[in-house]
Amino acid sequence: MQITIHNAPLQLEHPFKLSYGTTTVRKNILVNITHEDFTGTGEAAVVPYYTSTPEGILRYLTDPALGDAIGDDPLLLEDALDRLPSDGPAAARAAVDIALHDLWGQRLGQPLYQLWGLNPARIPQSSYTVTMADDEVAYRERVRAAKGYQLIKLKLGSGSRQNDLQMVRIAREETDAQLCVDVNGGWSAADALAMIPRLAEYDLTFVEQPIARDDFEGWRLLRASLPADRPPLIADESVQGVASVPPLAGIVDGVNIKLAKCGGLRAARQMIALARAYDMQVLIGCMIESSVAVTAAAHLAPMADYADLDGNLLITNDPYRGAVMSRGYLTLPDAPGLGVTPVVD
Amino acid sequence: MQITIHNAPLQLEHPFKLSYGTTTVRKNILVNITHEDFTGTGEAAVVPYYTSTPEGILRYLTDPALGDAIGDDPLLLEDALDRLPSDGPAAARAAVDIALHDLWGQRLGQPLYQLWGLNPARIPQSSYTVTMADDEVAYRERVRAAKGYQLIKLKLGSGSRQNDLQMVRIAREETDAQLCVDVNGGWSAADALAMIPRLAEYDLTFVEQPIARDDFEGWRLLRASLPADRPPLIADESVQGVASVPPLAGIVDGVNIKLAKCGGLRAARQMIALARAYDMQVLIGCMIESSVAVTAAAHLAPMADYADLDGNLLITNDPYRGAVMSRGYLTLPDAPGLGVTPVVD
Repeated sequence: MQITIHNAPLQLEHPFKLSYGTTTVRKNILVNITHEDFTGTGEAAVVPYYTSTPEGILRYLTDPALGDAIGDDPLLLEDALDRLPSDGPAAARAAVDIALHDLWGQRLGQPLYQLWGLNPARIPQSSYTVTMADDEVAYRERVRAAKGYQLIKLKLGSGSRQNDLQMVRIAREETDAQLCVDVNGGWSAADALAMIPRLAEYDLTFVEQPIARDDFEGWRLLRASLPADRPPLIADESVQGVASVPPLAGIVDGVNIKLAKCGGLRAARQMIALARAYDMQVLIGCMIESSVAVTAAAHLAPMADYADLDGNLLITNDPYRGAVMSRGYLTLPDAPGLGVTPVVD
Repeated sequence: MQITIHNAPLQLEHPFKLSYGTTTVRKNILVNITHEDFTGTGEAAVVPYYTSTPEGILRYLTDPALGDAIGDDPLLLEDALDRLPSDGPAAARAAVDIALHDLWGQRLGQPLYQLWGLNPARIPQSSYTVTMADDEVAYRERVRAAKGYQLIKLKLGSGSRQNDLQMVRIAREETDAQLCVDVNGGWSAADALAMIPRLAEYDLTFVEQPIARDDFEGWRLLRASLPADRPPLIADESVQGVASVPPLAGIVDGVNIKLAKCGGLRAARQMIALARAYDMQVLIGCMIESSVAVTAAAHLAPMADYADLDGNLLITNDPYRGAVMSRGYLTLPDAPGLGVTPVVD
């Protein structure tokens, strides 16, 4: 099997503000694995605020050892996945894993969801993300733009408890939709203990990553101290690969699984199995990614309780077509494998 | 979809001695689920020394609610499995799970191993079981009958440490094959602490269920007290369904997964995911079962480190043909689904 890689600079519709500056493009990398008449496609999200570098991802994907690892029979999927070097960046491993799954599904002539026995009608409605705004008028407008969505995710962690509360209050005034909040680790455990009961008055579906990713003591404290009717606490940054799930058993209520964090579809399915054994909820998320990686995650989404799969809607030059989103409703392509097709210029 | 059940009394080639008497027949139950031109087949092992009764198994399989639960679309496998009543005997749930997988695979036109991306060449050589004999001459003969097998499993737990040691010594004199021992919970933790280092001199591949199934303190003690180069300690009776795996993390080295214990193929795959996340070894075992249940387990076996799948070789009237065993080497049928076919009288 032949592996080739391609740069896929994704233009952001709105510049992405981060502490170290503003980005307008994400330099993701696409992977093609070809066997006879079939080509599987995968994608590595290059996320500037993650520890993995574009160089590290490229090094993994261009290593001649990888060509040997993928083998020569697309039907022997598990053998190939077992042989992939396990020490590279998760996003690079995910790209190869996705391409191998796509090729396998094409070879078997079935969409991935079918090969997993899943019902595409069970994909949870994807949430709509409302980012922070400079003033109240602008914020109200952003919430109103979510009209029609069942679940709206408010980004919190403004640095001010008052501002964070204010945003949730405004959103609740503007909408009857389900609300959840994503703090991206922006609170201390003390902040979280104070904020979560107050926010719960606005009827939150869940609270995502309120505290810092390594603050396991904080997770334990929240679970022990908050009232039983608290909104579910979902870990995002605290969850990376398979090995990160068992330490969270009993201290979080759910996990946000992303292919680029965990290394691909096989690892994600293993994590879902673990999460279910621990009675955890499952959220399927994504990075800023093209339809390749988003569609891969969408095939898994019938297994999840929540989906946050709008990464490809934030870009203006999606190089592929795949799962289609309409006001949060995801429709999977019905073609073999991922079912994605390149956009011809 | 239509569900029908059939009695399958399996004649044992050699009477099976148990504390409460001797059995010459096992009254297993076969399940057929039919949709249009396809019929999936499953099997419930009725194990006299288990807590589930034949009546309980029959009650589960004839409950009208089960007919609703399996639904009407064989492709929506996970939906059907989600709907199965979860409170019935594991062997009955396994029968329905196996039949639904068989039907799903037939509907997709692929063998189950293919739908899991597995390489049938990776099935571990199945072990040969040597039961206890009345005297040394007879025991030597039984060990010699295992000629050609790579892995021989010695049943221990005679009630005498001296006899147990003697059996391993004799077996090692007779063969250069890999040896493992299965104590079926017959030792106290003190017995195990004394016996395992002495048995390790005979180079054991693993020690299965040395202590009683609920003796979690015993497992902890063995792991803490035995030298690091001990043979791996594999839990069998201590492992039942998915929920039984997390409590064994860090206190056993592996788990023996059987479809009739855990409730079927989906649960078994979930348990393998858990076991791998905990760095546990996996043994795939079976009960005294026909080729239906044994072949179902064999499709999973490429994921395991060890296989003990000779249940159908102990009976004289196997109603189906499926995976074929030759001196421990299992060959999977290449037909869609399980690939089993009824034996026509």
